Amino acid sequence: MSKNDRIFKFENKPAIFSCGTVAGKKEWEGALGGVFDCHSEDDTFGMPTWEQSESEMQRLALNHALAKLSWDSTELGLMFAGDLINQCTSSGYGLIDFDVPFLGLFGACSTLAEGLILAAFIVNAGYVNAAAAVTSSHNCSAERQFRFPIEYGGQRTPTSQWTVTGAGAFIVGRRSLLDVDEKLISAKSAPPNQPSPLFTHIRIAEAMPGRTIECGITDANNMGAAMAPAAADTLLRYFKVSGTKPDDYDLIVTGDLAFEGHRLTSELLAQKGIHLGSNFNDCGLIIYDRERQDMHAGGSGCGCSALVVAAEILPKIDRGELKNVLFIGTGALMSPMSVQQGLPIPAIGHLVRLIHD
Amino acid sequence: MSKNDRIFKFENKPAIFSCGTVAGKKEWEGALGGVFDCHSEDDTFGMPTWEQSESEMQRLALNHALAKLSWDSTELGLMFAGDLINQCTSSGYGLIDFDVPFLGLFGACSTLAEGLILAAFIVNAGYVNAAAAVTSSHNCSAERQFRFPIEYGGQRTPTSQWTVTGAGAFIVGRRSLLDVDEKLISAKSAPPNQPSPLFTHIRIAEAMPGRTIECGITDANNMGAAMAPAAADTLLRYFKVSGTKPDDYDLIVTGDLAFEGHRLTSELLAQKGIHLGSNFNDCGLIIYDRERQDMHAGGSGCGCSALVVAAEILPKIDRGELKNVLFIGTGALMSPMSVQQGLPIPAIGHLVRLIHD
Repeated sequence: MSKNDRIFKFENKPAIFSCGTVAGKKEWEGALGGVFDCHSEDDTFGMPTWEQSESEMQRLALNHALAKLSWDSTELGLMFAGDLINQCTSSGYGLIDFDVPFLGLFGACSTLAEGLILAAFIVNAGYVNAAAAVTSSHNCSAERQFRFPIEYGGQRTPTSQWTVTGAGAFIVGRRSLLDVDEKLISAKSAPPNQPSPLFTHIRIAEAMPGRTIECGITDANNMGAAMAPAAADTLLRYFKVSGTKPDDYDLIVTGDLAFEGHRLTSELLAQKGIHLGSNFNDCGLIIYDRERQDMHAGGSGCGCSALVVAAEILPKIDRGELKNVLFIGTGALMSPMSVQQGLPIPAIGHLVRLIHD
Repeated sequence: MSKNDRIFKFENKPAIFSCGTVAGKKEWEGALGGVFDCHSEDDTFGMPTWEQSESEMQRLALNHALAKLSWDSTELGLMFAGDLINQCTSSGYGLIDFDVPFLGLFGACSTLAEGLILAAFIVNAGYVNAAAAVTSSHNCSAERQFRFPIEYGGQRTPTSQWTVTGAGAFIVGRRSLLDVDEKLISAKSAPPNQPSPLFTHIRIAEAMPGRTIECGITDANNMGAAMAPAAADTLLRYFKVSGTKPDDYDLIVTGDLAFEGHRLTSELLAQKGIHLGSNFNDCGLIIYDRERQDMHAGGSGCGCSALVVAAEILPKIDRGELKNVLFIGTGALMSPMSVQQGLPIPAIGHLVRLIHD
């Protein structure tokens, strides 16, 4: 065990207050259909380019997350955001209207986990009362940048994942604000027949940022295989340091390994004597309806875990249906050029423990 | 003044212990020539592609920074790193050999300031004893990605800046370690005729992360004009909140506005009644020798401020020649595609106050 195999514990109870979710058409028609805050029937969100559509999605997502708290953006002390597009322009342009200090991230599909970890660090230490973590991906902007423009109609391999058109914004704040902030108190008191727009029982309890891992995978159409070793590495370290085992958690969810990577992660852990059971799932497997939608290996992209965590996992934690969840955001840190140059694909897995409290 | 116009103060004295600097040939021949830890006569650093050269520079920079402390990488609790190349692969590949949790950043040329701020947040709050902030740029990888491959021999405009080939790694740690860590105590006791390899008197006192600002500049060959409003915005807010004025600082240094942006920032502040004097400089103006080297408006790229801060500014703070310095890292958050699509260039300026203590 390395000296810096460290689990960061957040004693001051940083909480997730709300999420905003913005989805594309396929995601709206998928397994979680209907629960997102906003969607676009043609995936454009009214914008003239796919890149601007993706920026608009981030803007909408953060607006929705703030609206649920009746907050304006000045309540946020910091924003963390990133995406897959070159120079993270979806975040840079998408959040420009919010008058909030901005720290840009790059973690590929692990960006949500990275943003939640940094927001928890900052809120737990008392630097700010609340911070936002925002991320997005768009199928059309990502495909033309990483593979081919969709108009080309290229064949996809069975191991390839479908980049999710989705954006999520997450507001992390000091738990105690729920009892003292007048806007939050008022937002909590929803009419008896309606669910409260904000979450009151979700805590970020721990985090374990990952290390970059590379196991020789060079196939840009098999991200699951590239990322599985990173997910397995972080999980192995986490179980070792915490002294816990998979059964101790209601849900262990990666985002996004999809079919191929999910299977490989189970195998890699089994080789080390750790058996992930039916409580092990992946955001890339959850988002689409595999019966009705053929998305090959499943979903991917920063927006995939953002939508699944926001719309499926957090509400269950808030209601107490899930009490103890490990979320491991996984990212493949290659570029189209590094793949063309024949380099293997490095990956990373950042772990966040979310609890009902 | 907005509610979140906040200066973050670091009461627990996060210190900068050491830097590693790796430079290209032009930078080695420039105004700071000879003080960098390592350089390459052909800018390749022995690697087959420019992208891999840049990754190698990050690896070398962090090795140099650690070696000065006689530390191995397990002393680092976290690494923050980013660069200009698509999907930040210079950082992803460059730091893969270090067994340290990795959080990727994207802040364009503001990445050094962003990394220092996050490292200071984390160290000051006691999450880790030490963290690294690493960044790089390479003229050949950046030019072919953002403008034209250098082999094309394109004409450059007078306002264009020269992307610096350079990498810097900065180790931020708890000040008290200098008195208790045996390796640091031993590294401090250099022979009497030699300077100590590590810094013992540099504190990160305050930080003010910037907001994204966009003033309609669409010319990708005039980054200085795009970034000047962001630098001015952060400086204005900082002076207002802190109640200080430019004369209170030994040095106010932006990185990297170069000739055009430096002049515009002075003008923008003068319009608000704040007059920056001869203590206002810019890393893009410092790095090259304007008499001998024609670099047009000056230097740019994440590596520019990294080299200048590490090799020129921090040693002066450590020796007490500068006691109170504002460093404002500025970044242009556009991509080649956003420029082609006609969008104006958003920019950001993150402020760090460094003091002799």
